Amino acid sequence: MEKKEVKLLGLWSSPFVVRVIWALKLKGIEYEYIEEKDPMHNKSPLLLQSNPVMKKVPVLIHGGKPICESLHILEYIDEVWSDNRLLPEDPYEKAVVRFWAKFSDEKLGEIAIKILKSEGEELENEVKQLEEALDILEKEMKDKIKKFFGGETIGYLDLVLGWSGLWLEIIEELSCGKKISSDTHRYPTFNRWIEDVNDVNIIKENLPSKDQLSTDFLYIRNSALAYKAKN
Amino acid sequence: MEKKEVKLLGLWSSPFVVRVIWALKLKGIEYEYIEEKDPMHNKSPLLLQSNPVMKKVPVLIHGGKPICESLHILEYIDEVWSDNRLLPEDPYEKAVVRFWAKFSDEKLGEIAIKILKSEGEELENEVKQLEEALDILEKEMKDKIKKFFGGETIGYLDLVLGWSGLWLEIIEELSCGKKISSDTHRYPTFNRWIEDVNDVNIIKENLPSKDQLSTDFLYIRNSALAYKAKN
Repeated sequence: MEKKEVKLLGLWSSPFVVRVIWALKLKGIEYEYIEEKDPMHNKSPLLLQSNPVMKKVPVLIHGGKPICESLHILEYIDEVWSDNRLLPEDPYEKAVVRFWAKFSDEKLGEIAIKILKSEGEELENEVKQLEEALDILEKEMKDKIKKFFGGETIGYLDLVLGWSGLWLEIIEELSCGKKISSDTHRYPTFNRWIEDVNDVNIIKENLPSKDQLSTDFLYIRNSALAYKAKN
Repeated sequence: MEKKEVKLLGLWSSPFVVRVIWALKLKGIEYEYIEEKDPMHNKSPLLLQSNPVMKKVPVLIHGGKPICESLHILEYIDEVWSDNRLLPEDPYEKAVVRFWAKFSDEKLGEIAIKILKSEGEELENEVKQLEEALDILEKEMKDKIKKFFGGETIGYLDLVLGWSGLWLEIIEELSCGKKISSDTHRYPTFNRWIEDVNDVNIIKENLPSKDQLSTDFLYIRNSALAYKAKN
């Protein structure tokens, strides 16, 4: 067990931060949480000093050294605190979970942001892309899933993709007014998996409130649409 | 040393493939190279079967199991053939090289593709972004570099970023008609590093010809501009 001081620069509403919180709690690592209060307009000196290139949360600071990018932070945590492994140890299995983590962030994640910030025809196109990405994920989960996406116990992929339950639901409600990902006929395995993940104490005890998140994301949506209308 | 059969599905002009070729050769791993002849219009059954989700090269097939995404392939190669490590073993140092690999692909790589496919004001904006990304890289290299980006011997980051010498030069010549990255006044460390990397036998013996690459990329540029003009 590493004894150096651990700090996490975070933002309560960020799905990239919540996966790091889950990992730290699952591993039983004590840490100081530091909320980045206004990362859009007024970045803190600590954030600018810790992540001068990307200027984004989360940043894990361990013994004074900053680690950036949420997927890299999860790998770092798993390498330094190696009890209760989050990633598989086998190199092939590890490459597979890294593939699905990248897919989750680059497909689901980026499409979700576009859906939040669009309307009309653009929104329709993005919704179609989301449905296709979810089709791919549903197929993979149906073929491979055990209780969790990585195996019988919660692991890396569950943490990486765990945001999709709450965050996607909110984004879909705000932007489309209809359920997409939570369609249990089209995505039965995905929805069973979300239930199982949300049933884990550390996950459900460390989720933001749906109301607060909806308010925050509605503000982001309205600002983005107003900006687009002006430009 | 793993003895299972190794195959690489590649494309001669791809900077994502060349980094895997370099890694295999540096490690002394015997492999069969299979060229994906027309990945844009007519993907091979082997590619579709090996990478059904992204349908992209490179794919490394090891003992019949496919590994996708070039950065994951490099990590896999380094984990399975662990002599002459490409990545540092220390978790913090590993997180740092992963950060710069992601920066290289997401900033330099994506901007380079946009520069190749744009003209006019859009091109000017992308060139500015490229210059800023190179400023960041130059600063990092100036502060941290030894002979190579990862240390005294060639490693992961050199392989990940090694495309930038030849490919950027060609893209800049075709799109802007001027040198950007090879400006040795603005980017002295970056250019010294490129010379050192290109001086390594395995690198220089496994680079495509500049003429062929220029012809190929000019075709991609013209097709992209024609498509934009029509739509």
